[in-house]
Amino acid sequence: MQNNSGVTAAEGFTAAGVACGIKKNGNKDLAIIKCETVAKAAGVFTRNVVKGHSLQLSRHNVENGRAQAVIINSGNANACLAERGKQDALKTAQLTAVKLGCAPEDVLPASTGVIGIPLPLDCIQAGIEKAVLTKDGGHDAAEAIMTTDTVPKQAETRVTIGGHEITIGGMAKGSGMIHPNMATMISVVTTDANISADALKTALGTAADASYNRISVDGDTSVCDKVLLLSSCLAGNKEIVEGSEDYALFLDALKNVCVTLAKMLAADGEGATKLLTIEVKGTRTNEDAHKIANAIAKSPLCKTAAFGNDANWGRLLTAAGYSGASFDPEKVDIYIGDVQVCKNGGGLAFDEDAALRVLKQDEVIFSLEFDDGNGKDTMWTCDFSTDYVKINADYRT
Amino acid sequence: MQNNSGVTAAEGFTAAGVACGIKKNGNKDLAIIKCETVAKAAGVFTRNVVKGHSLQLSRHNVENGRAQAVIINSGNANACLAERGKQDALKTAQLTAVKLGCAPEDVLPASTGVIGIPLPLDCIQAGIEKAVLTKDGGHDAAEAIMTTDTVPKQAETRVTIGGHEITIGGMAKGSGMIHPNMATMISVVTTDANISADALKTALGTAADASYNRISVDGDTSVCDKVLLLSSCLAGNKEIVEGSEDYALFLDALKNVCVTLAKMLAADGEGATKLLTIEVKGTRTNEDAHKIANAIAKSPLCKTAAFGNDANWGRLLTAAGYSGASFDPEKVDIYIGDVQVCKNGGGLAFDEDAALRVLKQDEVIFSLEFDDGNGKDTMWTCDFSTDYVKINADYRT
Repeated sequence: MQNNSGVTAAEGFTAAGVACGIKKNGNKDLAIIKCETVAKAAGVFTRNVVKGHSLQLSRHNVENGRAQAVIINSGNANACLAERGKQDALKTAQLTAVKLGCAPEDVLPASTGVIGIPLPLDCIQAGIEKAVLTKDGGHDAAEAIMTTDTVPKQAETRVTIGGHEITIGGMAKGSGMIHPNMATMISVVTTDANISADALKTALGTAADASYNRISVDGDTSVCDKVLLLSSCLAGNKEIVEGSEDYALFLDALKNVCVTLAKMLAADGEGATKLLTIEVKGTRTNEDAHKIANAIAKSPLCKTAAFGNDANWGRLLTAAGYSGASFDPEKVDIYIGDVQVCKNGGGLAFDEDAALRVLKQDEVIFSLEFDDGNGKDTMWTCDFSTDYVKINADYRT
Repeated sequence: MQNNSGVTAAEGFTAAGVACGIKKNGNKDLAIIKCETVAKAAGVFTRNVVKGHSLQLSRHNVENGRAQAVIINSGNANACLAERGKQDALKTAQLTAVKLGCAPEDVLPASTGVIGIPLPLDCIQAGIEKAVLTKDGGHDAAEAIMTTDTVPKQAETRVTIGGHEITIGGMAKGSGMIHPNMATMISVVTTDANISADALKTALGTAADASYNRISVDGDTSVCDKVLLLSSCLAGNKEIVEGSEDYALFLDALKNVCVTLAKMLAADGEGATKLLTIEVKGTRTNEDAHKIANAIAKSPLCKTAAFGNDANWGRLLTAAGYSGASFDPEKVDIYIGDVQVCKNGGGLAFDEDAALRVLKQDEVIFSLEFDDGNGKDTMWTCDFSTDYVKINADYRT
């Protein structure tokens, strides 16, 4: 049983997080994670047409299903810099490879921060030299990838597969721009499960869809975001392949870690005062349920009402109405926590004080129940506060 | 030449705006517009699946291409109230018809405000009794439809068609929830042009698409929104039919009024400090250009940066990237006003002071130029301020 948390929890992984001078405030801004073996690896990347240079190199390097190290800097996105950006990503990978004694093609670089400013490579180089990777370095790494995050985010879980204890641990950063399809969100998950490269890739896609692709902070998606999953394969279990019982156990555990991290991201959205869970069920299709949950999770009006503890269910129904989902507006029930506020599309004379008590909690569940079928979906988001605007009005300057 | 403004500018129209007690602050909250003839009429309505009861009746009543009166209350949306809401809309139309001496089927009711609270019909009745419709009543009507608007919005234009002077005038209300496809936005435009019902309907659709459907405040769309166009046909010109030169002249003038009103709506978005114009050109298709302009106009990150006078062009490019449009990210030029900040997808070392001067103006133009074709589009929006959140956090309570 490991006592280390996050990305160093699984057998075979060490990490470091250092301050190398990219961030002007002197905070940690460079994380390195290493696997002692050449790990099996998979990635899920932003669907933005514009892609950061570090991300592009990572995507290229992980295509063969293997990797040995991840290097992440915060404070600079290394994006929209043409040839210079490509070269800086390559140099970062090379410097990391020399330091760790691995192949540069097995290094996955990642960058997050402001767009269009060249990466200060001298800082990166100094940081790489300074970094001491240890089994206890997971927390420092989680700190080093933070941008406007207020807390580092780590999770881990253990599951017994074929008599062997498997560990899955991870870290994530996010805050602003978090939205499905990988916004300014970076997450690295590591495991020691012995698993085939194909199974690892499929599991990551499925788990990401149920977690990172179900959160939204402001509807924006960034150019640098990714989830990486690396396995040292050192746990001693028989190799997990797709479709097996062991695979189902592994996937459940992986989802558990990813959903935990995703909810931490939503709860720590820029300026957030509470986590909002949007549950939709009874739609014609799952896709309809997702459209409705997504429209509510993105609606500034729903999110400002949540900030103001205002049981304004009309805004929930309005967002459902323009979501693109088809439903019968006269067969909708809406609940704020356990307080029903709307029945069959019409307002109820509900207990405003009870609703206020629900809305003042750190976690609030909005449930919309339709009578059109068995479709369902859940999304996580946060409220929209005056602080969100303040944070984002002067991020760059 | 009429000297009256807005909806009473055209020959044959009178209006009134009164306070009838729906708004708790005693402000005007009921507008009535009457045409002395049975007008030719057309409407464009919200695409939200959920539709307010007044809106549903209006849509039904205008289907035959004729109408004689419009009655609009602010402070209550008459939405999500099941049978009660339908009956209240019918009663409002009946009371109006009795007062004005027209058929109830020729009355178009509209409501805007909070959802799910029954319409106070006694207030409406008292307001109808109190209203005195005059040729000077346009401004009062424009005031009476305001919700969180800070200024009443009116526009008018004149054009000579076949030797006869045609007047087109209108009013609008909006502010929050303004977004393409008719958000909480109500606009009434009147004219004296002699025009066929078919031509009137087509012209309204085309003009609305170039104006009201090109603005966004927060991406939300409401359940009560509509644009109505009524013509008294009293100008003495030969009847305008589709495809004629006269039609082109009429359409241009109508677009002029609608675009003027739409820009007023965007500039007066809740908490707005400036009007933002998003110009996109050089995309493969007009649809691609629209997707990009729309993504930027909806992006909280682009809009908070504008509020903070931050020349954060990376957020513009990021929004373009996730808009769903296809483009070559290495062939994008971006301008903030006349300051070029990005060339071929890469950042330029631009003059920050010059950009700051542009951003501090009341109107700021963001231009994105692609090199993929002849597609183009323009949208109008506003910045996203701390006041937006304050206004919307406690709208209902």
